[in-house]
Amino acid sequence: MPAYPRTARPALIIGSVAIDRVATPHAQSENLLGGAASYAAIAASYFAPARLVGVVGGDFPNRFFKLYRKHGIDLAGLKVEASGKTFFWSGRYRENFAGRDTLEIQLNVFQNFSPELPPAYRDTPFVMLGAIQPALQLHVLDQLARGRKKPFVLADTFDLWINTTRPELERLLKRIDLLVINEDESLLLTGQRNLILAGRALRKMGPRAVVLKKGEHGSLLFHPDGFFAIPAYPVTRFVDPTGAGDSYAGALIGCLASVNRTDFTALKRAVACATAVSSLTVESFSVHRLSSAGRKLIDARLRELETLTRF
Amino acid sequence: MPAYPRTARPALIIGSVAIDRVATPHAQSENLLGGAASYAAIAASYFAPARLVGVVGGDFPNRFFKLYRKHGIDLAGLKVEASGKTFFWSGRYRENFAGRDTLEIQLNVFQNFSPELPPAYRDTPFVMLGAIQPALQLHVLDQLARGRKKPFVLADTFDLWINTTRPELERLLKRIDLLVINEDESLLLTGQRNLILAGRALRKMGPRAVVLKKGEHGSLLFHPDGFFAIPAYPVTRFVDPTGAGDSYAGALIGCLASVNRTDFTALKRAVACATAVSSLTVESFSVHRLSSAGRKLIDARLRELETLTRF
Repeated sequence: MPAYPRTARPALIIGSVAIDRVATPHAQSENLLGGAASYAAIAASYFAPARLVGVVGGDFPNRFFKLYRKHGIDLAGLKVEASGKTFFWSGRYRENFAGRDTLEIQLNVFQNFSPELPPAYRDTPFVMLGAIQPALQLHVLDQLARGRKKPFVLADTFDLWINTTRPELERLLKRIDLLVINEDESLLLTGQRNLILAGRALRKMGPRAVVLKKGEHGSLLFHPDGFFAIPAYPVTRFVDPTGAGDSYAGALIGCLASVNRTDFTALKRAVACATAVSSLTVESFSVHRLSSAGRKLIDARLRELETLTRF
Repeated sequence: MPAYPRTARPALIIGSVAIDRVATPHAQSENLLGGAASYAAIAASYFAPARLVGVVGGDFPNRFFKLYRKHGIDLAGLKVEASGKTFFWSGRYRENFAGRDTLEIQLNVFQNFSPELPPAYRDTPFVMLGAIQPALQLHVLDQLARGRKKPFVLADTFDLWINTTRPELERLLKRIDLLVINEDESLLLTGQRNLILAGRALRKMGPRAVVLKKGEHGSLLFHPDGFFAIPAYPVTRFVDPTGAGDSYAGALIGCLASVNRTDFTALKRAVACATAVSSLTVESFSVHRLSSAGRKLIDARLRELETLTRF
């Protein structure tokens, strides 16, 4: 279990846990640990104690529990429905990774997932809401509101919710601190192609800060105190992008939790951490590289990012 | 005429001079000063004395000569064919600036353009070869080889030459110091979609350094001493992208000429200058904003770029 700085506070991650089968243009792999919460909690665990809220079935392999524990992840919020099966996802990336197609989904125990926070979690100061239905994200916020102190909330979303549950999503946006979104989702939500104007439009929808992710082109941070841009880490061994966005968000919330700060300076550093960590995720299937990389490699990439943008 | 630092050396710009008619999804304008050499020479002139080699017809408006002179551009290499007409180009950008179509081209005096350097130009230490035919770019290099000292040569190219005169282009690449190229051209030339691997592949084709331009996503510099990435300047008043790449290359060569250095540190700063200057070009039709901006605004954007990438 990692050692955290004295400033570190816990980071709560809510989202899907899945077993994946993934095919890329170059290779394929199955029986993989997947789901947004898996990637995000492992990523966060490099910086701060992570708490995972999700659901799995009786078939969830012991080796995956072990992997979570290796990262010191608190599993009090991971519900095991012994009689059910774990959420299964199978997808295939198109040539040149230009989009992906879902080949099979078995929601299983995830079908009726309703995230219930253990009472001890209601005061978690840093929260990441993975891209589950906005109604469920709101349900988590309602439970957090019963805690003593207002937490810092990061939310992720995706195109399905923008298309199908927009009113709930708009209500959510008014209640979060940081929205993390990619270019396509941003265009869908704002209709604005200019990324700078899109960032501003997203902030007008509620969140104090917005991070716009552009994949290999890096990311942009829009904040009341300023604008920050960072290129991607230069990856040359690109294997599988699954979970890159989830690791990004997990590292971001973990990095904030580790310093217990949410100001512009802390956010810029957290965006850099997220950039470094997600660059590891894409270098293997599943969480293999993310989990085995270690903090030293992450710090080395962080320093490289600092250097390669200086002039 | 601008005042240059004592280190400044002249920068020689070879390329097209044109009269443009441009339509964007939002507006249109005509009788515009255009051509790669116009944009590049004005951009370079902010940093170092610029020399322009090109050709115009007897119809070339006096106000354009005046504009060049306002920027102190040496016109000894600008040939005037009084009996001919200036190169005319008319283009229309598609919705959302997703590509552009050429509506009309009249090559006129540019048809038989063969760049001949005045003897006094053969020792110019900094040279930008605009995207004319590679055979003509090579012809310029042959004339420069007769000078006393090897110059630093930046070359631009475009898809037409990659598709139609590849052998000459490959010969050119072996004789230049810096290739400036955009994402689409890089893919066409290398077949490599991973931008980091593409940059390396381009360097293997000859140039010691490569700048890969990604429009609103900034640019990447590949150099033997390291890798550098810079985001685009955050532009919100996007009017017309014509000439952005030419201004970029012109500012880059001008910035190197101003410090009379070509090492990695100087190149990084020059890429930042290029980023700042080209952000002005896209804020108006033609060279209007580029020409009227002034050095103070360029320096302010340069400082902003420095700040917005720091964490």
